[in-house]
Amino acid sequence: MTTSDDAQTVKKAPAKDPWELPDVSGLVVGVLGGTGDQGRGLAYRLAKAGQRVIIGSRAAERAQAAAGELGLGVEGADNAECARRSDIVIVAVPWDGHAKTLEGLREELAGKLVVDCVNPLGFDKQGAYALKPEEGSAAEQAAALLPDSRVTAAFHHLSAVLLQDPEIDAIDTDVMVLGEARADTDVVQALAGRIPGMRGVFAGRLRNAHQVESLVANLISVNRRYKAHAGLRVTDV
Amino acid sequence: MTTSDDAQTVKKAPAKDPWELPDVSGLVVGVLGGTGDQGRGLAYRLAKAGQRVIIGSRAAERAQAAAGELGLGVEGADNAECARRSDIVIVAVPWDGHAKTLEGLREELAGKLVVDCVNPLGFDKQGAYALKPEEGSAAEQAAALLPDSRVTAAFHHLSAVLLQDPEIDAIDTDVMVLGEARADTDVVQALAGRIPGMRGVFAGRLRNAHQVESLVANLISVNRRYKAHAGLRVTDV
Repeated sequence: MTTSDDAQTVKKAPAKDPWELPDVSGLVVGVLGGTGDQGRGLAYRLAKAGQRVIIGSRAAERAQAAAGELGLGVEGADNAECARRSDIVIVAVPWDGHAKTLEGLREELAGKLVVDCVNPLGFDKQGAYALKPEEGSAAEQAAALLPDSRVTAAFHHLSAVLLQDPEIDAIDTDVMVLGEARADTDVVQALAGRIPGMRGVFAGRLRNAHQVESLVANLISVNRRYKAHAGLRVTDV
Repeated sequence: MTTSDDAQTVKKAPAKDPWELPDVSGLVVGVLGGTGDQGRGLAYRLAKAGQRVIIGSRAAERAQAAAGELGLGVEGADNAECARRSDIVIVAVPWDGHAKTLEGLREELAGKLVVDCVNPLGFDKQGAYALKPEEGSAAEQAAALLPDSRVTAAFHHLSAVLLQDPEIDAIDTDVMVLGEARADTDVVQALAGRIPGMRGVFAGRLRNAHQVESLVANLISVNRRYKAHAGLRVTDV
């Protein structure tokens, strides 16, 4: 039977090499919250790797000032223009402003590849702890607020200190990339791989984003105990 | 003022070297759920490293049979005897039986160092996902049920396949160790460090155990995509 044969053919097709990733060097990357430590660090590393980067902020002047400091061809714009002009939009805003920022950019982010890297954390005298967003995670909140965007999650475990340190050439870490569509996570993995030392590793669907986001609380404990800027490597891959 | 001076002296005392860990080679390690894949794998590795190990199971005969297969001086006993005779008790039972098993062993586990390595996960056609225990995590459930024990959490991210493979000499991974008391987490780190290739890394308090437990869902996605037995390394420490 044809149907059954077809099914078998599909089944027998060799699995796509998971390390075969697209060329993303021509894509424009926007960074919402690009004046914060994490956003600025990512913008710096991506621009240094040759990517065209636009920093977004609520006020265009602040974004332009931060962009000017970074150099490397980085531009600054208000969040709406940053989103509109970018192919990939990294969301690096504080958790507090996450929902409000994204709600206001629904149109500008329609059709875009959104990469959420926000870690919802609380802090008290004993250190950091996970906050649990109603939607499950920051990434799932983004997906709920942006039904017309392709939402992924990545870049959670990077040290903003290391990212911003011009003395450091390579960042020794893997980037866990989560999302629903392989075409999208492949792009984000490729983008992570542009930064020397980094590797993008697919690490599941958005419903498993919460633990990846909140693991930052554990890395903060590691940093405190070992006076380090801890990152993660996935072994055996 | 004396008080102020004292405080300053305490403050100035050099921080203890986080890699200075106790000698645990003389401690007896019990493994509840030691007939399961994870428990048997851990028992095998610890016994191979020279640790005295007792496998626990509901039925003593099953535990003794599994112990006999492992050799290396491993003993088998029912869960109660396993707990009573051990200094450190690793909890490697299925999540389904976690609460009930621990409730029944409260007396035997009093005063013991308990190491919870249980990952509460659900599974469906899309793979694994995190379950959220009412207490926050499996480890916090253990702490709630065992008020007279010293509860820690560790050994979540190990591949049972690699642990049990006699062809593999070293397991290339770090073990995140969580707990409230440094004396206890130091012992568990030292225990992890007995296994070639492994290193125990302090990674926070029990309130941050949920994300460590449920990250196994992500590692399952990694394994599926890359046909691997993924583990984790913490970088910069």
